[in-house]
Amino acid sequence: MSGNETIDAPMELALKEAEAAAKRGEVPVGAVIVSADGEVLAETGNRIVELKDPTAHAEVLAIREAAAHLGSERLIDCDLYVTLEPCAMCAGAISFARLRRVYYGAEDPKGGAVDNGPCFFHQPTCHHAPDVYGGLSEAPASDLLRQFFAARRS
Amino acid sequence: MSGNETIDAPMELALKEAEAAAKRGEVPVGAVIVSADGEVLAETGNRIVELKDPTAHAEVLAIREAAAHLGSERLIDCDLYVTLEPCAMCAGAISFARLRRVYYGAEDPKGGAVDNGPCFFHQPTCHHAPDVYGGLSEAPASDLLRQFFAARRS
Repeated sequence: MSGNETIDAPMELALKEAEAAAKRGEVPVGAVIVSADGEVLAETGNRIVELKDPTAHAEVLAIREAAAHLGSERLIDCDLYVTLEPCAMCAGAISFARLRRVYYGAEDPKGGAVDNGPCFFHQPTCHHAPDVYGGLSEAPASDLLRQFFAARRS
Repeated sequence: MSGNETIDAPMELALKEAEAAAKRGEVPVGAVIVSADGEVLAETGNRIVELKDPTAHAEVLAIREAAAHLGSERLIDCDLYVTLEPCAMCAGAISFARLRRVYYGAEDPKGGAVDNGPCFFHQPTCHHAPDVYGGLSEAPASDLLRQFFAARRS
């Protein structure tokens, strides 16, 4: 990565996917997977309600989409951009997929598993840990979540 | 559950799925989901290699299959039988699916996340924890795994 421009472009796509998820009535989280040479292999958002699938978090769907695209269950040298800190399920999937880097937006003290809760990548039972960069586009990612839950409570 | 007979029948199915997985070249893990009234909603095994999908653990596939069967992302009052202690990814999926009970066979000190590693169901970031019963049909479940890895090393 040479600078913020390169990093920010996939996170912008992930934010758009999060916005689209909110419009579908899903918790607004979006995820994008990019190959080592910058190709977008997957871009998607939460589809738990739509697919009636509790595993249909943005990260899991993006990993499955990128793996199908590459024809491999290992996403070597690929990077994930996601608007919210991944949960335990998604952290496990990230590790199995051998993703190289994870860039996330908003921290999730209630359900996150990267820098909160089990801090999965630091567990001795985690056999591949990506490099993690948190707080990328944190403000718009948090705003989307806050607006979504405020609208649900009103 | 009234006794071992009722409990053992789904675990027998899960063991058969684990055997079938080994024959496909997959790490032999099988999973079965049963509704409150005893209906088998899903029975499957690992399909990571077959589907080229790092998330295709037996538990995740079973949860997705049962959710599709019920038309709901929540598997209320349903129980999971799995031949190996679930990993972090699967423990997260189990929690999101709101499964009532988890019966597992062999413990997994290297990769388990229920009674090992992050012990996810005891984390403050876990918002639904099933009742867990480990060591059910542990010997045949462990034997299958041992044979599989021994054959790979030889």
